[in-house]
Amino acid sequence: MARNITPREQDYSQWYLDIIKVAELADYAPVRGCMVVRPTGYAIWEDLQAKFDRAFKETGHVNAYFPLLIPSSFLRKEAEHVEGFAPECAVVTHAGGEELEEPLVIRPTSETVIGAMYSKWVQSWRDLPLLINQWANVLRWEKRPRLFLRTSEFLWQEGHTAHATAAEAEEETVKMLNVYAKIMKEDMALPVVEGVKSEGERFPGALDTYTCETMVSDTKALQAGTSHFLGQNFARAFSIQFQDQNGEMQYAWTTSWGVSTRMIGAIIMTHSDNDGLILPPRVAPVKAVIVPISKDDAAFAELDAKARELADELNNVLGPLTVRVDEQNHMRPADRFFYHLQRGVPLRLELGEKDAAAGTVRAVRRDTGAREDLKWGELAERVPAILEDIQKSLYEKACAFRDANTYEASSYDELKARLEKGGWVKCFFAGSKEDEKKIKEETQATVRCYPLAEKDRTGKCVYTGKEGAHLAVFAKSY
Amino acid sequence: MARNITPREQDYSQWYLDIIKVAELADYAPVRGCMVVRPTGYAIWEDLQAKFDRAFKETGHVNAYFPLLIPSSFLRKEAEHVEGFAPECAVVTHAGGEELEEPLVIRPTSETVIGAMYSKWVQSWRDLPLLINQWANVLRWEKRPRLFLRTSEFLWQEGHTAHATAAEAEEETVKMLNVYAKIMKEDMALPVVEGVKSEGERFPGALDTYTCETMVSDTKALQAGTSHFLGQNFARAFSIQFQDQNGEMQYAWTTSWGVSTRMIGAIIMTHSDNDGLILPPRVAPVKAVIVPISKDDAAFAELDAKARELADELNNVLGPLTVRVDEQNHMRPADRFFYHLQRGVPLRLELGEKDAAAGTVRAVRRDTGAREDLKWGELAERVPAILEDIQKSLYEKACAFRDANTYEASSYDELKARLEKGGWVKCFFAGSKEDEKKIKEETQATVRCYPLAEKDRTGKCVYTGKEGAHLAVFAKSY
Repeated sequence: MARNITPREQDYSQWYLDIIKVAELADYAPVRGCMVVRPTGYAIWEDLQAKFDRAFKETGHVNAYFPLLIPSSFLRKEAEHVEGFAPECAVVTHAGGEELEEPLVIRPTSETVIGAMYSKWVQSWRDLPLLINQWANVLRWEKRPRLFLRTSEFLWQEGHTAHATAAEAEEETVKMLNVYAKIMKEDMALPVVEGVKSEGERFPGALDTYTCETMVSDTKALQAGTSHFLGQNFARAFSIQFQDQNGEMQYAWTTSWGVSTRMIGAIIMTHSDNDGLILPPRVAPVKAVIVPISKDDAAFAELDAKARELADELNNVLGPLTVRVDEQNHMRPADRFFYHLQRGVPLRLELGEKDAAAGTVRAVRRDTGAREDLKWGELAERVPAILEDIQKSLYEKACAFRDANTYEASSYDELKARLEKGGWVKCFFAGSKEDEKKIKEETQATVRCYPLAEKDRTGKCVYTGKEGAHLAVFAKSY
Repeated sequence: MARNITPREQDYSQWYLDIIKVAELADYAPVRGCMVVRPTGYAIWEDLQAKFDRAFKETGHVNAYFPLLIPSSFLRKEAEHVEGFAPECAVVTHAGGEELEEPLVIRPTSETVIGAMYSKWVQSWRDLPLLINQWANVLRWEKRPRLFLRTSEFLWQEGHTAHATAAEAEEETVKMLNVYAKIMKEDMALPVVEGVKSEGERFPGALDTYTCETMVSDTKALQAGTSHFLGQNFARAFSIQFQDQNGEMQYAWTTSWGVSTRMIGAIIMTHSDNDGLILPPRVAPVKAVIVPISKDDAAFAELDAKARELADELNNVLGPLTVRVDEQNHMRPADRFFYHLQRGVPLRLELGEKDAAAGTVRAVRRDTGAREDLKWGELAERVPAILEDIQKSLYEKACAFRDANTYEASSYDELKARLEKGGWVKCFFAGSKEDEKKIKEETQATVRCYPLAEKDRTGKCVYTGKEGAHLAVFAKSY
């Protein structure tokens, strides 16, 4: 049934790009490495934004906006930070018809410029905690761009908080990781594992980086969101100081955390098939489509009117504009079905003359293809229930796939052999940053994280032989 | 009563900046000309975004995202466009550690890059109209920046539509002008006049620019939003062509329209006084604050609990988090009152021990200072009613002020004399772009618009003496 889509088994990368193309999610921009997020893709982003934004506000955060351009000297104030980001920066050297005295970089992330502002705003313990989030575009020049997953410009949110104590900042870091994981599991149906990054994979300038790692359908890992405990590194670099309750000056403790448009790539890769996009209903902008069908114009008009009536009823239950009517009656029914199937609409409701005579619609699930006749009067109850069932099935399927492709290794040879066949491999690991580098050279895989759920398991490191090593997940990744 | 604010009569510019400072709406960024929108300012922007976005969607538009960086050659494809924008552009010459082959400009507006994408997406008349909006940051290098009104980087939305006929595109241009004007009048309480720009004030590349012009409290004009009929200029420059129903290739007709964070400047300047910010309730993120007051800790705890209960009740009616409780009991009552007054909260509800004994709160309006005791049981009904009255009063006051400061002139001498004293001056005008330039040199004023409501009034041009001239508004502007 697949048209215009390279089968996943044949070429996974091309399959992914073909889905984006047929579902009209994104397009390449005229500038290399940059993308255009098309309306159908942007609608997914808007929906994700709304969900995350609500969760941020419920946890006491407010939004603000910081500038796009950062003096290049700012980046150099934190040694690890500049080393990590300077090679990826785009640099503005001229503006307003003149050469600038100091070049400006387009923000690759905003710790530095936000640090400079926080040092002005934070004076006393009463000003803390400062809990601010920003929705913005950032730019990191990409040599090997891939739509959604790795583009030079991308959209994201970056939370930046300042606290009076290390404990409070660490609590915030983990709290936001959990906010991310909850939405990713419950709404995006991603089989994420929460964990801590190894030294070699930490955010440049962080003491600890927490991550939501997910497995996509070729068994590679994808980092879907990260939360960083920055200690006092940025507070010292930018002089974020406050007078504590005893009248003494202290440096603040800061965090930062972000998720981006790359999450859309994770959704596509996790759930889709060779026919096209599959979207979990809770993040699908269009949750169901009603397709009235008749070769007779008068009959079509009647069916169309009924379809609109049913859609209005469903939109009252599911939210405005989430159920649409397909009026492309100039196309063949099979083409109209395929149109919505490729675009990942979770449920199709066909309304032909025979269905109308029976007072039913033929419901077809995108995930399984299962068909069922539903009475008009029961739609308001049954459609939300079917959508919830699709949501649940997709998550369970993704978790089962992750578990079936996760292995354990008790020696480095076993780890290497297993990684060659794909999947995630768990083993005890206590190697250094340099060890990680060597393993990456040999296996193309990295430590994705030390899973929090298994932090109490310790054993002998497969690489160094050290005892008391924690359990790590190794995998190739996007 | 004013503290930290320069009186408006003494220094209007400083008064404006002082209000932004005390209300914590925005701050200067480390890069000259750029701003940080602080949480209280950003909350206003989020509220405006939600209102405009809803109106765009109700009129059939969808959102998308186009890239920040534009090849510099794109700008040159439309002659007037490059002349208008090139001098204000910021230019990226290096990225990823290398010098770029072609410099990239940071978008000053996106007609060019969107035009390039539309030429790919539009093939047939079935692809039209294409009705896309983008929320984004843009950059136009400013020599004389002023927070919100003129900053090098600002946030805005830009709608870009393509149509099969000139008539449809013109209809869209005016439709979106009316969408803007409605929200500005009804929600922002701005006394806007809808009009057409003169040749000299048109968007570079447009055939016609429509504008919402508003009068702020020093009687100057401020352009609050614009909508452009671009004809086929950009369609020709970027080859946006479609096959019509007769199978013939045609160039599309395009429009663009935008509003930006400068609207926040318009709100501040229109309504505020020497005590600080005044916000129309419909755009105020915090619509009312309840202030429990007692020197006794136990009594305060009881009042605070009651205040939270009342706030919950009001939030159910007015929307989540729109009514807050002030718990800063370590401050003097007068300071707590002033805190919210300076920040423009429309209604203050004081709850002292005497009020509690009487089962009332003391309501104080920000706009008039009027006080009234309200029974707890009637708050859910009375508070929304008072807020609506404040909304109405602010709009009526602003319209009355605009009308009282609008004059007519029947000769050029009269026009010049009147403009020196401030205000808007209406007169018949049919001068050329060059005439406009000379008048600006002599008066510092420009044609703000030809008001649509008075388009049928014609007479003798005060400058050229031509008959049949339309009525124009001249004014100094921001």
